[in-house]
Amino acid sequence: MSFTEQEEGLMKESWEMMKQNIPELSLRLLTTILEIAAAAKSMFSFLRDSDEIPQNNPKLKAHAVKVFKMTCESAVQLREKGEVVVAENTLKNLGSIHLKKGIIDPHFELVNKALLRTIKEAVGEKWSEEMGSAWGVAYDKLAVAIKAQMKQEDSQLPSNP
Amino acid sequence: MSFTEQEEGLMKESWEMMKQNIPELSLRLLTTILEIAAAAKSMFSFLRDSDEIPQNNPKLKAHAVKVFKMTCESAVQLREKGEVVVAENTLKNLGSIHLKKGIIDPHFELVNKALLRTIKEAVGEKWSEEMGSAWGVAYDKLAVAIKAQMKQEDSQLPSNP
Repeated sequence: MSFTEQEEGLMKESWEMMKQNIPELSLRLLTTILEIAAAAKSMFSFLRDSDEIPQNNPKLKAHAVKVFKMTCESAVQLREKGEVVVAENTLKNLGSIHLKKGIIDPHFELVNKALLRTIKEAVGEKWSEEMGSAWGVAYDKLAVAIKAQMKQEDSQLPSNP
Repeated sequence: MSFTEQEEGLMKESWEMMKQNIPELSLRLLTTILEIAAAAKSMFSFLRDSDEIPQNNPKLKAHAVKVFKMTCESAVQLREKGEVVVAENTLKNLGSIHLKKGIIDPHFELVNKALLRTIKEAVGEKWSEEMGSAWGVAYDKLAVAIKAQMKQEDSQLPSNP
Protein backbone atom coordinates (compact mmCIF):
# COMPACT_ATOMS: atom_id res chain seq x y z
CA MET A 1 0.00 0.00 0.00
CA SER A 2 1.75 3.14 -1.13
CA PHE A 3 0.32 6.53 -0.43
CA THR A 4 2.26 9.50 -1.74
CA GLU A 5 3.10 12.86 -0.20
CA GLN A 6 1.22 14.44 -3.05
CA GLU A 7 -1.93 12.53 -2.17
CA GLU A 8 -1.60 13.50 1.46
CA GLY A 9 -1.05 17.09 0.33
CA LEU A 10 -4.23 17.08 -1.75
CA MET A 11 -6.22 15.90 1.23
CA LYS A 12 -4.77 18.47 3.58
CA GLU A 13 -5.31 21.24 1.06
CA SER A 14 -8.96 20.30 0.67
CA TRP A 15 -9.49 19.87 4.41
CA GLU A 16 -8.04 23.35 5.03
CA MET A 17 -10.64 24.77 2.66
CA MET A 18 -13.50 22.75 4.06
CA LYS A 19 -12.90 23.41 7.70
CA GLN A 20 -13.62 27.09 7.15
CA ASN A 21 -17.29 26.21 7.12
CA ILE A 22 -17.97 23.24 9.37
CA PRO A 23 -21.71 23.88 9.87
CA GLU A 24 -22.43 23.79 6.16
CA LEU A 25 -19.98 20.99 5.50
CA SER A 26 -21.41 18.68 8.13
CA LEU A 27 -24.93 19.38 6.97
CA ARG A 28 -24.01 18.57 3.37
CA LEU A 29 -22.37 15.31 4.39
CA LEU A 30 -25.44 14.27 6.34
CA THR A 31 -27.94 15.24 3.66
CA THR A 32 -25.89 13.47 1.01
CA ILE A 33 -25.82 10.30 3.10
CA LEU A 34 -29.57 10.48 3.57
CA GLU A 35 -30.16 11.20 -0.11
CA ILE A 36 -28.21 8.11 -1.11
CA ALA A 37 -29.98 6.00 1.51
CA ALA A 38 -33.41 7.29 0.50
CA ALA A 39 -32.68 6.32 -3.08
CA ALA A 40 -32.85 2.71 -1.91
CA LYS A 41 -36.58 3.21 -1.61
CA SER A 42 -36.92 4.99 -4.93
CA MET A 43 -35.25 2.01 -6.61
CA PHE A 44 -38.63 0.36 -6.52
CA SER A 45 -41.38 2.01 -8.54
CA PHE A 46 -44.07 0.18 -6.56
CA LEU A 47 -42.84 1.71 -3.29
CA ARG A 48 -42.71 5.29 -4.36
CA ASP A 49 -46.31 6.26 -3.78
CA SER A 50 -46.92 4.23 -0.69
CA ASP A 51 -45.55 3.75 2.77
CA GLU A 52 -46.70 0.17 2.88
CA ILE A 53 -44.77 -2.85 1.79
CA PRO A 54 -46.83 -4.39 -1.02
CA GLN A 55 -47.88 -7.97 -0.30
CA ASN A 56 -47.79 -10.39 -3.21
CA ASN A 57 -47.01 -7.64 -5.72
CA PRO A 58 -46.36 -9.02 -9.25
CA LYS A 59 -43.68 -6.41 -10.06
CA LEU A 60 -41.86 -7.12 -6.82
CA LYS A 61 -41.94 -10.87 -7.42
CA ALA A 62 -40.76 -10.51 -11.01
CA HIS A 63 -37.91 -8.26 -9.95
CA ALA A 64 -36.78 -10.52 -7.12
CA VAL A 65 -36.89 -13.62 -9.30
CA LYS A 66 -34.79 -11.81 -11.91
CA VAL A 67 -32.15 -10.98 -9.30
CA PHE A 68 -31.93 -14.59 -8.11
CA LYS A 69 -32.00 -16.11 -11.59
CA MET A 70 -29.45 -13.75 -13.10
CA THR A 71 -27.14 -14.36 -10.15
CA CYS A 72 -27.46 -18.12 -10.74
CA GLU A 73 -26.75 -17.61 -14.44
CA SER A 74 -23.68 -15.59 -13.52
CA ALA A 75 -22.46 -18.49 -11.43
CA VAL A 76 -22.79 -20.84 -14.39
CA GLN A 77 -20.80 -18.45 -16.57
CA LEU A 78 -18.15 -17.94 -13.94
CA ARG A 79 -17.66 -21.68 -13.70
CA GLU A 80 -17.71 -22.21 -17.48
CA LYS A 81 -15.86 -19.13 -18.76
CA GLY A 82 -14.30 -17.53 -15.70
CA GLU A 83 -16.26 -14.33 -16.30
CA VAL A 84 -19.79 -12.98 -16.41
CA VAL A 85 -21.00 -12.14 -19.89
CA VAL A 86 -24.52 -10.75 -20.05
CA ALA A 87 -26.31 -10.72 -23.42
CA GLU A 88 -25.79 -7.30 -24.98
CA ASN A 89 -29.44 -6.24 -25.09
CA THR A 90 -30.15 -7.40 -21.56
CA LEU A 91 -27.09 -5.56 -20.30
CA LYS A 92 -28.05 -2.37 -22.13
CA ASN A 93 -31.50 -2.46 -20.57
CA LEU A 94 -30.12 -3.13 -17.13
CA GLY A 95 -27.52 -0.39 -17.46
CA SER A 96 -29.95 2.27 -18.59
CA ILE A 97 -32.66 1.47 -16.06
CA HIS A 98 -30.24 1.44 -13.12
CA LEU A 99 -28.70 4.68 -14.33
CA LYS A 100 -32.10 6.32 -14.65
CA LYS A 101 -33.06 5.26 -11.12
CA GLY A 102 -29.92 6.84 -9.69
CA ILE A 103 -28.48 3.56 -8.45
CA ILE A 104 -24.88 3.83 -7.27
CA ASP A 105 -22.29 1.47 -5.84
CA PRO A 106 -23.55 1.39 -2.23
CA HIS A 107 -26.95 0.20 -3.46
CA PHE A 108 -25.38 -2.82 -5.09
CA GLU A 109 -23.49 -3.49 -1.86
CA LEU A 110 -26.71 -3.19 0.06
CA VAL A 111 -28.58 -5.60 -2.21
CA ASN A 112 -25.68 -8.05 -1.99
CA LYS A 113 -25.90 -8.00 1.79
CA ALA A 114 -29.69 -8.27 1.77
CA LEU A 115 -29.54 -11.13 -0.71
CA LEU A 116 -27.24 -13.16 1.52
CA ARG A 117 -29.33 -12.52 4.62
CA THR A 118 -32.48 -13.54 2.76
CA ILE A 119 -30.91 -16.74 1.44
CA LYS A 120 -29.51 -17.63 4.85
CA GLU A 121 -32.92 -17.24 6.39
CA ALA A 122 -34.68 -19.10 3.58
CA VAL A 123 -32.47 -22.18 3.40
CA GLY A 124 -32.16 -22.67 7.15
CA GLU A 125 -29.83 -25.50 8.10
CA LYS A 126 -28.67 -25.96 4.49
CA TRP A 127 -26.80 -22.66 4.87
CA SER A 128 -23.00 -22.68 4.81
CA GLU A 129 -20.34 -20.01 4.56
CA GLU A 130 -19.39 -21.51 1.22
CA MET A 131 -22.93 -21.18 -0.10
CA GLY A 132 -23.00 -17.55 0.99
CA SER A 133 -19.68 -16.75 -0.58
CA ALA A 134 -20.71 -18.37 -3.88
CA TRP A 135 -23.84 -16.19 -4.05
CA GLY A 136 -21.83 -13.16 -2.99
CA VAL A 137 -19.18 -13.62 -5.66
CA ALA A 138 -21.68 -14.35 -8.41
CA TYR A 139 -23.79 -11.32 -7.48
CA ASP A 140 -20.74 -9.11 -7.23
CA LYS A 141 -19.47 -10.06 -10.69
CA LEU A 142 -22.91 -9.45 -12.15
CA ALA A 143 -22.97 -6.05 -10.44
CA VAL A 144 -19.55 -5.22 -11.92
CA ALA A 145 -20.92 -5.91 -15.41
CA ILE A 146 -23.99 -3.74 -14.82
CA LYS A 147 -21.92 -0.91 -13.30
CA ALA A 148 -19.51 -0.96 -16.26
CA GLN A 149 -22.48 -0.65 -18.62
CA MET A 150 -23.91 2.21 -16.54
CA LYS A 151 -20.60 4.03 -16.71
CA GLN A 152 -20.48 3.64 -20.45
CA GLU A 153 -24.04 4.90 -20.90
CA ASP A 154 -23.40 7.78 -18.56
CA SER A 155 -20.37 8.96 -20.54
CA GLN A 156 -22.50 8.96 -23.69
CA LEU A 157 -25.21 11.24 -22.31
CA PRO A 158 -24.94 14.67 -23.98
CA SER A 159 -25.75 16.50 -20.72
CA ASN A 160 -22.81 14.93 -18.92
CA PRO A 161 -19.50 16.76 -19.37
CA MET B 1 -11.50 -16.08 -11.47
CA SER B 2 -12.28 -19.68 -10.69
CA PHE B 3 -15.72 -20.75 -9.70
CA THR B 4 -16.19 -24.41 -8.92
CA GLU B 5 -18.92 -26.87 -9.83
CA GLN B 6 -19.52 -27.30 -6.13
CA GLU B 7 -20.16 -23.60 -5.66
CA GLU B 8 -22.53 -23.60 -8.60
CA GLY B 9 -24.23 -26.66 -7.10
CA LEU B 10 -24.73 -24.94 -3.75
CA MET B 11 -26.38 -22.01 -5.44
CA LYS B 12 -28.67 -24.17 -7.52
CA GLU B 13 -29.61 -26.26 -4.51
CA SER B 14 -30.56 -23.17 -2.52
CA TRP B 15 -32.41 -21.61 -5.42
CA GLU B 16 -34.46 -24.79 -5.87
CA MET B 17 -35.53 -24.48 -2.24
CA MET B 18 -36.24 -20.78 -2.38
CA LYS B 19 -38.26 -20.75 -5.55
CA GLN B 20 -40.94 -22.84 -3.86
CA ASN B 21 -42.10 -19.69 -2.15
CA ILE B 22 -41.50 -16.68 -4.35
CA PRO B 23 -44.03 -14.36 -2.68
CA GLU B 24 -42.43 -14.69 0.72
CA LEU B 25 -38.91 -14.71 -0.67
CA SER B 26 -39.33 -11.52 -2.65
CA LEU B 27 -40.95 -9.79 0.29
CA ARG B 28 -38.09 -10.78 2.58
CA LEU B 29 -35.52 -9.50 0.11
CA LEU B 30 -37.30 -6.19 -0.16
CA THR B 31 -37.83 -5.71 3.56
CA THR B 32 -34.22 -6.62 4.26
CA ILE B 33 -33.02 -4.04 1.75
CA LEU B 34 -35.24 -1.40 3.33
CA GLU B 35 -34.15 -2.36 6.84
CA ILE B 36 -30.52 -1.89 5.92
CA ALA B 37 -31.26 1.39 4.15
CA ALA B 38 -33.35 2.69 7.05
CA ALA B 39 -30.46 1.99 9.39
CA ALA B 40 -28.61 4.80 7.62
CA LYS B 41 -30.94 7.17 9.43
CA SER B 42 -30.64 5.42 12.76
CA MET B 43 -26.87 5.83 12.58
CA PHE B 44 -27.42 9.33 13.85
CA SER B 45 -28.89 9.67 17.31
CA PHE B 46 -29.93 13.25 16.64
CA LEU B 47 -32.09 12.18 13.70
CA ARG B 48 -33.99 9.42 15.38
CA ASP B 49 -36.71 11.47 17.02
CA SER B 50 -37.19 14.00 14.28
CA ASP B 51 -37.97 14.15 10.59
CA GLU B 52 -36.10 17.39 10.21
CA ILE B 53 -32.46 17.80 9.37
CA PRO B 54 -30.94 19.58 12.36
CA GLN B 55 -29.32 22.90 11.47
CA ASN B 56 -26.07 23.77 13.21
CA ASN B 57 -26.32 20.77 15.55
CA PRO B 58 -23.24 20.38 17.78
CA LYS B 59 -23.34 16.55 17.70
CA LEU B 60 -23.61 16.53 13.94
CA LYS B 61 -20.71 18.94 13.56
CA ALA B 62 -18.52 17.01 15.99
CA HIS B 63 -19.25 13.73 14.21
CA ALA B 64 -18.56 15.14 10.75
CA VAL B 65 -15.32 16.76 11.85
CA LYS B 66 -14.22 13.45 13.36
CA VAL B 67 -14.83 11.66 10.06
CA PHE B 68 -12.81 14.20 8.10
CA LYS B 69 -9.98 14.43 10.62
CA MET B 70 -9.61 10.70 11.15
CA THR B 71 -9.56 10.18 7.39
CA CYS B 72 -6.78 12.78 7.10
CA GLU B 73 -4.88 11.07 9.90
CA SER B 74 -5.27 7.76 8.09
CA ALA B 75 -3.71 9.33 5.02
CA VAL B 76 -0.68 10.45 7.05
CA GLN B 77 -0.27 6.92 8.41
CA LEU B 78 -0.68 5.34 5.02
CA ARG B 79 2.07 7.55 3.65
CA GLU B 80 4.36 7.04 6.65
CA LYS B 81 3.77 3.39 7.51
CA GLY B 82 1.84 1.93 4.59
CA GLU B 83 -1.06 1.05 6.86
CA VAL B 84 -3.69 2.59 9.10
CA VAL B 85 -3.13 2.06 12.79
CA VAL B 86 -5.77 3.55 15.06
CA ALA B 87 -4.94 3.98 18.76
CA GLU B 88 -6.31 0.96 20.61
CA ASN B 89 -8.77 2.81 22.84
CA THR B 90 -10.11 4.93 20.00
CA LEU B 91 -10.55 1.83 17.86
CA LYS B 92 -12.33 -0.05 20.62
CA ASN B 93 -14.76 2.82 21.10
CA LEU B 94 -15.36 3.11 17.39
CA GLY B 95 -15.84 -0.62 17.03
CA SER B 96 -18.34 -0.96 19.85
CA ILE B 97 -20.41 2.09 18.94
CA HIS B 98 -20.70 1.09 15.28
CA LEU B 99 -21.60 -2.44 16.28
CA LYS B 100 -24.26 -1.19 18.67
CA LYS B 101 -25.81 1.01 15.99
CA GLY B 102 -26.09 -1.92 13.59
CA ILE B 103 -23.69 -0.44 11.05
CA ILE B 104 -22.74 -2.88 8.29
CA ASP B 105 -20.53 -2.79 5.20
CA PRO B 106 -22.93 -0.98 2.86
CA HIS B 107 -23.14 1.91 5.33
CA PHE B 108 -19.40 2.44 5.13
CA GLU B 109 -19.67 2.32 1.32
CA LEU B 110 -22.45 4.85 1.48
CA VAL B 111 -20.51 7.23 3.71
CA ASN B 112 -17.47 6.88 1.45
CA LYS B 113 -19.55 7.91 -1.54
CA ALA B 114 -21.23 10.75 0.34
CA LEU B 115 -17.86 11.96 1.62
CA LEU B 116 -16.44 12.23 -1.90
CA ARG B 117 -19.52 14.02 -3.21
CA THR B 118 -19.40 16.48 -0.32
CA ILE B 119 -15.71 17.19 -0.83
CA LYS B 120 -16.13 17.61 -4.58
CA GLU B 121 -18.88 20.13 -4.01
CA ALA B 122 -16.99 21.93 -1.23
CA VAL B 123 -13.66 22.39 -2.97
CA GLY B 124 -15.09 23.40 -6.35
CA GLU B 125 -12.45 23.87 -9.02
CA LYS B 126 -9.71 22.49 -6.76
CA TRP B 127 -11.29 19.06 -7.20
CA SER B 128 -9.38 16.41 -9.10
CA GLU B 129 -9.81 12.69 -9.63
CA GLU B 130 -6.58 12.23 -7.72
CA MET B 131 -7.86 14.17 -4.73
CA GLY B 132 -11.00 12.05 -4.71
CA SER B 133 -9.13 8.81 -4.93
CA ALA B 134 -6.80 9.83 -2.07
CA TRP B 135 -9.79 10.54 0.20
CA GLY B 136 -11.47 7.36 -0.96
CA VAL B 137 -8.48 5.15 -0.23
CA ALA B 138 -7.78 6.74 3.16
CA TYR B 139 -11.43 6.42 4.21
CA ASP B 140 -11.61 2.86 2.98
CA LYS B 141 -8.54 1.77 4.95
CA LEU B 142 -9.92 3.44 8.06
CA ALA B 143 -13.23 1.62 7.51
CA VAL B 144 -11.37 -1.69 7.18
CA ALA B 145 -9.76 -1.10 10.60
CA ILE B 146 -13.11 -0.23 12.21
CA LYS B 147 -14.85 -3.22 10.60
CA ALA B 148 -12.12 -5.60 11.80
CA GLN B 149 -12.59 -4.28 15.33
CA MET B 150 -16.38 -4.67 15.05
CA LYS B 151 -15.94 -8.27 13.93
CA GLN B 152 -13.69 -8.99 16.88
CA GLU B 153 -16.09 -7.40 19.38
CA ASP B 154 -19.02 -9.22 17.83
CA SER B 155 -17.34 -12.60 18.19
CA GLN B 156 -16.78 -11.85 21.88
CA LEU B 157 -20.41 -11.18 22.65
CA PRO B 158 -21.82 -14.03 24.74
CA SER B 159 -25.17 -13.91 22.94
CA ASN B 160 -23.54 -14.52 19.58
CA PRO B 161 -23.00 -18.17 18.67
